[in-house]
Amino acid sequence: MSTNNVEIICVGNELLIGKTLNTNAHWLAKRITTLGLKVRRIIVVGDELDEIASVVKETVKRKPCFIVVTGGLGPTFDDKTLEGVALGLDRKLQENKEALEMIKAKYEKYVAEGRMEKYEMTPHRVKMGRLPEGSKPLPNPVGTAPGVILEHEGIKMVMLPGVPEEMKSIFDESVAPMIRKMAGDLTFYEASLEVRNMPESELAPILDVVMHDNPYVYVKSHPKASERVPYLELHFSTTSHDSKSARQRIGRAVIQISEMIKKKGGEIKPIKIEK
Amino acid sequence: MSTNNVEIICVGNELLIGKTLNTNAHWLAKRITTLGLKVRRIIVVGDELDEIASVVKETVKRKPCFIVVTGGLGPTFDDKTLEGVALGLDRKLQENKEALEMIKAKYEKYVAEGRMEKYEMTPHRVKMGRLPEGSKPLPNPVGTAPGVILEHEGIKMVMLPGVPEEMKSIFDESVAPMIRKMAGDLTFYEASLEVRNMPESELAPILDVVMHDNPYVYVKSHPKASERVPYLELHFSTTSHDSKSARQRIGRAVIQISEMIKKKGGEIKPIKIEK
Repeated sequence: MSTNNVEIICVGNELLIGKTLNTNAHWLAKRITTLGLKVRRIIVVGDELDEIASVVKETVKRKPCFIVVTGGLGPTFDDKTLEGVALGLDRKLQENKEALEMIKAKYEKYVAEGRMEKYEMTPHRVKMGRLPEGSKPLPNPVGTAPGVILEHEGIKMVMLPGVPEEMKSIFDESVAPMIRKMAGDLTFYEASLEVRNMPESELAPILDVVMHDNPYVYVKSHPKASERVPYLELHFSTTSHDSKSARQRIGRAVIQISEMIKKKGGEIKPIKIEK
Repeated sequence: MSTNNVEIICVGNELLIGKTLNTNAHWLAKRITTLGLKVRRIIVVGDELDEIASVVKETVKRKPCFIVVTGGLGPTFDDKTLEGVALGLDRKLQENKEALEMIKAKYEKYVAEGRMEKYEMTPHRVKMGRLPEGSKPLPNPVGTAPGVILEHEGIKMVMLPGVPEEMKSIFDESVAPMIRKMAGDLTFYEASLEVRNMPESELAPILDVVMHDNPYVYVKSHPKASERVPYLELHFSTTSHDSKSARQRIGRAVIQISEMIKKKGGEIKPIKIEK
C-alpha cells in the first residue's frame, strides 16, 4: 500500500456536462494536502452504476491509503454511489440499522421544527440507509444522508454527499481526524513569489538549477496576468515531519532563486497565500 | 469505438494540492457537451511522467472518440505532458519542424514588439516543439507553446496548454470545429426549474415516474439554498438530432413534473440558464 496517497472520486453528471464547477474536489484536495497526505488522482464520473463500479475497482488496484468519494448519496434514482461502490468491491448492499436510525432522527427533527407535517420511511428514504456490507455511517451535521466509511484490503474509503456544506461538515467532523492520524506529523508547507519582467522560457533553466540544489522542495511556475500585464507565480512546496527544517528548506530555495532571477533582470515580490 | 464519448485529462500538481480550481475542466465539459458530444470522464493527474503515461494508456483502452489533455506543454522541467503521452502511446518524441517554426515566429514577434531584447532557441524553447511522432501542432493565438493533435487507433487526441486563455483560444479555433463535425447535427438541450416547499425525498418518487414516462430526457435534482432557505433545482437535459423534438421532449417532461409537484403542495418557477 502506498503509505500517503489519497484518491478522490467525484460522482455526478452535472460535473461532466459542465453545469457545476467542481469546487468539492478543490476543497478536498487542499484540505487533504494541508493535513499532510498526497492527492494522487481526482476522477470525475457520471451517475452510472457500471462506471462508478469500474472507477472504484481501478482505484483500489492502485492501493492508495485513502479514497474519498463525493456525490450520489441522496434519495433520488440517480444517487447510485453506494450501489456502485458495493458492486465495485463485490459486496452486498444492505440496510444498516445505525444509518436508518440517523435518517429517522433527521426526519423526526424536521417534523418537530415544523419543516414537514409528518414523515414515513418511504423506499427512497430507506435507500439512504442501504450501505455496502461492512460499512459504518458517519453523522451528517447539515443534511439527511449519512456519510459512509468502510475498509477494503487495508484501504480506508469514505463516501460523502455532493452538497458542499454536507460534504465539508462530515469531512471536518469525521474524516479529517483520521487523515491527520495517518499523516502523523507530516505537514505541507508552501510559499509563493511573483516574478515580473522574465518570460517562462528564460526562467526554465533557473528552475532546473534550483530544483537540483533543493531536492525536497517542489517549485512550479504558473503564467498569470493582472490588468493584461503578464507575470509568473512561482510556487514552492514541501511535505515534512519537521516544521523548522521545512521552513528552512523553502527559505533556502526562495533565496537562491531570487538572486538568480534578479541577476537576469527579473523583478520579484512575495505573494501572500490565502488559507 | 464509442461514437460520442470524450474524456478529459488535466495534468498539473497545482490541481492535486488544491492550489488551483479546475475551471479548465468545467469550461471544456460545458463546451464539448454543448457541441453535442458526451464527456464520460475527467481525470486529474500530477506532473509525473509515469502517471501521465498510465492515464493515457487507460483512457485509450476505453476507446472514446476524442481525448482532450490540458496542462504541461510549457518550457519548464515539470511540463511533461508530451513526453508522457508519447510514452503512453509507445511513440517517439521528436522535433517537429512546423511546431519549431511556430515557436520561433512567436519569439520573433516578442522581439519586434520590444517585449524581449533578443532570443535564442534554447533547449527549453526547443522542448515545446518536441512532439509525439505523427503529431501536428495547432497554432496558439495567445501564448507560445503550440497545441498538439494526433490520431491513435481511430481516437483523436489533442493536447492544450493549461493557461486558460491559451487553452480556450486553441480549442475554439482548432478543436471545436472537429468536435462539431463528429457530433453531426447532435445538439444538447437543457432547462431548469426551481422547486420550493418540497424535500428531495418527497420529490424522488415523482422523478421516477417522470423519468419512466420520458425516456429521452434526463432529470436531476440539485439541493440548493438561497439566503439559508433550501430549495431544489431540477435540471432537464437531452441530446437530439432534431431541435424541435428535443424542445418538445423537455417541454413535456417539465409540464408533467410541474403538475405532479403542485399537486403535492410544492412551488415551481423556471430558472434562466446562463450560456
